[in-house]
Amino acid sequence: MYPRRQQELEKLIRRLGLSGDTQIDWSLLDIALTHPTMGMPNYEQLEFIGDAVVRLAASEFLWETYPGKSVGDFSAIRKVLVSDRILAQLADSYGFDRYLALAASAIGDPSGRVSRMADAFEAVLGALYLTANNLSLIRPWLDPHFHKLATEILEDPARQNYKDALQEWTQAHYKALPEYRVHEDPLKLDRFQRFIAEVWFRDRQLGRGTGQSKKAAEQAAAKVAFTQVIQPNL
Amino acid sequence: MYPRRQQELEKLIRRLGLSGDTQIDWSLLDIALTHPTMGMPNYEQLEFIGDAVVRLAASEFLWETYPGKSVGDFSAIRKVLVSDRILAQLADSYGFDRYLALAASAIGDPSGRVSRMADAFEAVLGALYLTANNLSLIRPWLDPHFHKLATEILEDPARQNYKDALQEWTQAHYKALPEYRVHEDPLKLDRFQRFIAEVWFRDRQLGRGTGQSKKAAEQAAAKVAFTQVIQPNL
Repeated sequence: MYPRRQQELEKLIRRLGLSGDTQIDWSLLDIALTHPTMGMPNYEQLEFIGDAVVRLAASEFLWETYPGKSVGDFSAIRKVLVSDRILAQLADSYGFDRYLALAASAIGDPSGRVSRMADAFEAVLGALYLTANNLSLIRPWLDPHFHKLATEILEDPARQNYKDALQEWTQAHYKALPEYRVHEDPLKLDRFQRFIAEVWFRDRQLGRGTGQSKKAAEQAAAKVAFTQVIQPNL
Repeated sequence: MYPRRQQELEKLIRRLGLSGDTQIDWSLLDIALTHPTMGMPNYEQLEFIGDAVVRLAASEFLWETYPGKSVGDFSAIRKVLVSDRILAQLADSYGFDRYLALAASAIGDPSGRVSRMADAFEAVLGALYLTANNLSLIRPWLDPHFHKLATEILEDPARQNYKDALQEWTQAHYKALPEYRVHEDPLKLDRFQRFIAEVWFRDRQLGRGTGQSKKAAEQAAAKVAFTQVIQPNL
């Protein structure tokens, strides 16, 4: 590894709040921040591990923090905590795009940005887990984020999953599913407006939303439908 | 906990191959082997943790054992390793039903047996993980099973997921999905023949199978279709 790369990765480790003398497997961390467009080795295998690691970290956090909550609540919260949307948001908050090495060709695909950032985040968790063989390099800095997010999710009757909440409502009341119509505006400069989704139910448009992925736009549309159309009538 | 219960649990720990002087959180292990029909506390929360634990154990095992395999192969194998079918099979091989405390009412539901055994198995993994805060009480005895299973799965072109393999084939060749017709014979004494599934494609029955759950019967039917109808013509 170039000394310059190592210095960058050390900066990231300090940003995560881990002390400078933490034992880190630098070459694993380097791979965790290498996109598949750079060839092999890349973050794919570490992401595979990290996907399981973040699920375990979230499960353990919930079990310790909310001993009285039902497993149904645990599942609903975990689903949001480990979602691409949240993991990409966390990666962004630590400026992961400054550390992720990728080929220029990948940058031309802004719609893949969310999953790319989430993948890199999971891969870094995988590398940190494999370094320590437990969650000791992860939970100290990840738990405070989980805490803040879980509090928000618990305050929200839709558990921040408006697509599921909307679907449950239409299923319960009409035994039918809402329909999403999504299109992409490839010329849109603001990446958060690139995808435009409408949600329809029984020939009526219930909401419209935009996002940097198809899924994000659908969630935004479902949020409008749930909070402005369904909830006021509940 | 009754001394008798503790003695039973100690027997299970030895069966798993863990030495008699292993530090175990016996009350957690007791909860892990308590079915929800027994009231609270029961295995539900530990199963929630264990679901993430087994996924991590399988991921780490695959990463260490098959460094050259693609992530696609990893995913296909992990999907089988953490399936209810395999986890229930492992639970059975250690005689978990001798240790699982449940109300008589639950026994009257033989169709729920597979998921019950899988759930208890996950819950025990959850309890062992929380005892050690790492996988050191799990991987020594679970890895050999994973090894045997992964070898079988890799030798099988359908990766032991015949429903997926069949669906991929019909999608690729006809852009259409096979159809499953399942019925239950509640009077069947042999629990492995309780559910009967047929798989149909384009007005032709491709296979028929039985199992102790709807899913297991569908897999059995898909296996017949894939190995006797599709593969011979490939």
